[in-house]
Amino acid sequence: MSDQLPRGFRAAGVYSGVKENPDRKDLSLVVSEFPASAVGVYTQNIVFGAPVKLNRNRTPSDAIRAVVINSGVANACTGEQGYRDAEAMAAAAAAACGAHPEQVLVMSTGVIGKLLPMEKIRAGIAQAAAQLDDAPAALVCAAQGMMTTDTRHKIVSREIRLSHGQVRVTAMAKGAAMIGPNMATMLALVMTDAALGVDDAQHCLKDAADESFNCISVEGHTSTSDTVLLLANGAAGGPRLAGADLAKFQATLVEVCEDLAQSIPADGEGATHLITVEVHGCRTRQEAVKIAKTIADSPLVKTAIAGADPNWGRIVSAAGYAGVPFDPDRVSLHLNGALLYERGVPVPFDEAAVSDDIQANRNVGIVLLLEEGHCSARFWTSDLTAEYVRLNADYRT
Amino acid sequence: MSDQLPRGFRAAGVYSGVKENPDRKDLSLVVSEFPASAVGVYTQNIVFGAPVKLNRNRTPSDAIRAVVINSGVANACTGEQGYRDAEAMAAAAAAACGAHPEQVLVMSTGVIGKLLPMEKIRAGIAQAAAQLDDAPAALVCAAQGMMTTDTRHKIVSREIRLSHGQVRVTAMAKGAAMIGPNMATMLALVMTDAALGVDDAQHCLKDAADESFNCISVEGHTSTSDTVLLLANGAAGGPRLAGADLAKFQATLVEVCEDLAQSIPADGEGATHLITVEVHGCRTRQEAVKIAKTIADSPLVKTAIAGADPNWGRIVSAAGYAGVPFDPDRVSLHLNGALLYERGVPVPFDEAAVSDDIQANRNVGIVLLLEEGHCSARFWTSDLTAEYVRLNADYRT
Repeated sequence: MSDQLPRGFRAAGVYSGVKENPDRKDLSLVVSEFPASAVGVYTQNIVFGAPVKLNRNRTPSDAIRAVVINSGVANACTGEQGYRDAEAMAAAAAAACGAHPEQVLVMSTGVIGKLLPMEKIRAGIAQAAAQLDDAPAALVCAAQGMMTTDTRHKIVSREIRLSHGQVRVTAMAKGAAMIGPNMATMLALVMTDAALGVDDAQHCLKDAADESFNCISVEGHTSTSDTVLLLANGAAGGPRLAGADLAKFQATLVEVCEDLAQSIPADGEGATHLITVEVHGCRTRQEAVKIAKTIADSPLVKTAIAGADPNWGRIVSAAGYAGVPFDPDRVSLHLNGALLYERGVPVPFDEAAVSDDIQANRNVGIVLLLEEGHCSARFWTSDLTAEYVRLNADYRT
Repeated sequence: MSDQLPRGFRAAGVYSGVKENPDRKDLSLVVSEFPASAVGVYTQNIVFGAPVKLNRNRTPSDAIRAVVINSGVANACTGEQGYRDAEAMAAAAAAACGAHPEQVLVMSTGVIGKLLPMEKIRAGIAQAAAQLDDAPAALVCAAQGMMTTDTRHKIVSREIRLSHGQVRVTAMAKGAAMIGPNMATMLALVMTDAALGVDDAQHCLKDAADESFNCISVEGHTSTSDTVLLLANGAAGGPRLAGADLAKFQATLVEVCEDLAQSIPADGEGATHLITVEVHGCRTRQEAVKIAKTIADSPLVKTAIAGADPNWGRIVSAAGYAGVPFDPDRVSLHLNGALLYERGVPVPFDEAAVSDDIQANRNVGIVLLLEEGHCSARFWTSDLTAEYVRLNADYRT
């Protein structure tokens, strides 16, 4: 069954002319029939784009009606004119769907340092507004309109039964993979027809992002435009979620965000493997994340996986410089289920078999066990191939 | 004029059989005629090799007589037997040059998780001891014996006049570049015939390493074996350095370490550029180093340079996620002398000319100017080429 929009949402994605290639969509519009609770999680980069600034000013909100997204130009490092353009983009979307300008949020991804071609953007918004639809095909178009170097659009959707009936959580994202002058931007929009209080929405999204979008990396570069938005319009009916319903919704939101987040490194530029790094036995989750991220960001680990090399030394030594104290004699390591290192000592294993296994499977699992505590974390990344470097270095020629 | 050993030092480098290729040396011995003040700076990795443990136990010292070095096997992750082997290696070197076992330090680099072939090591030490010489050629042999994936040996030597006469500082190193199962280990040995108190030596080496070896990276992976040793044997005569003499010596030590440190990323695997990142106008040197390191470690910056792409966005945005607060509207950027970004805004520049300039020169200079304070830092790294990835991923095939 194809992925659906939650009730009360319509979407569209069109080609507006921001991108050079007319075969690729570059402008998306998502509209909620009802004012929605809306919250965001944004890049931690000190240098951030105009849309991030605009969204920060407008969220949290209990009355957002639309999100307008363009790809091709990120509207970052564009000064005051950039901010005015982001406002104008929101105003155009608001006019097209009968909302107040302040009820619209904006996401942009692409080249930085360049102003938006506002005529094209305005025309694209009008065109998109005319195509708004609640059909699965419209959702796909919207997901395509935010793509930059992604090789496929990314949508995840789940329906759950709560005490007052079914609610749906549907999310779309574009990848952190990057090429050429585009930034490594990750954008995601989560829509639900559940009724959520603004504070609950903020809390839910923050937690879900911490376990998903904040646990992926392709090359460790934090973009100027990273944005995750959650819109909850209550169109499913029923009271604001609370208690067990809220908990169930939260669990689903985490699942949706995890699935969507994983699809980003899985589609990393030139990537041949999706690497899942699990770290267990830490004193805190923060420490587990720190170690998992250090392993995931190590070019030596990433090239080893690209080369189907079960190189325990690179993994264990990456853990050792994560800046988290632990007893190195109580570290064990599994790679794709095979024990390579046990309590500080490498153990004999069938190198060829593990290597063949890496080569044969797109998914690679690294599991590091410490004995310091009971906290865990997972982190997802792609391997590092010569193709990645070729894409990122040679795009000018 | 070829580089010379300081007075009172002899050196040798031989093939002992640890490496497979008999055309490459793999064992070096450096002996001081007089007991030397000896201090070390070691890897911050929690997982560290047996030689690091042994040296940490034996330094600082005022009576070191020799350093024995092997390449091919790092003697890391080798448990108690590894430590006994490191002790035995030191004892064999001590016997060969008439010293007490505790007067010898050890460095090993190469594969981790493998025990040293002690018979070969012992025979190699005897062979090296028979070839000890103070000629420049012997120094070159010793520098070759510590190489792993380096394409050339690395020696820097300076002579300075102090109030009691000339003293010499000579240093050799092997690179942090890595390939295959070898760790990205950086080893350096600095020798001087100056007379240095142990505390002064420790202080001088720590400061020099902070401005040199701690300001380079090839891929940001911290090895289990990184070691910098300083031996000062006083063979130049005269009293222990103090006051202006000590300051002059310190300045020379920094110079020697900077030159040697730069030669490491310059010889990085597959590298086509040595990138110098300068950051000025920070509140503290620590903050400047943090920003410079974040830029230097960004695969996006490194691939851009490999592709001769004057991509200011990748550089500025890397600075933005270094974790150092600064005003993004007061950031300016020069690349190879060209102004690309001024106080938060990209400026028009001749892209083709800057790109040609990157392509035509092995050295690339990135200069980032903040307006937060008056502290600066420099950091050196190599670019990231498809060849690097090929070397690190595909060595099994």
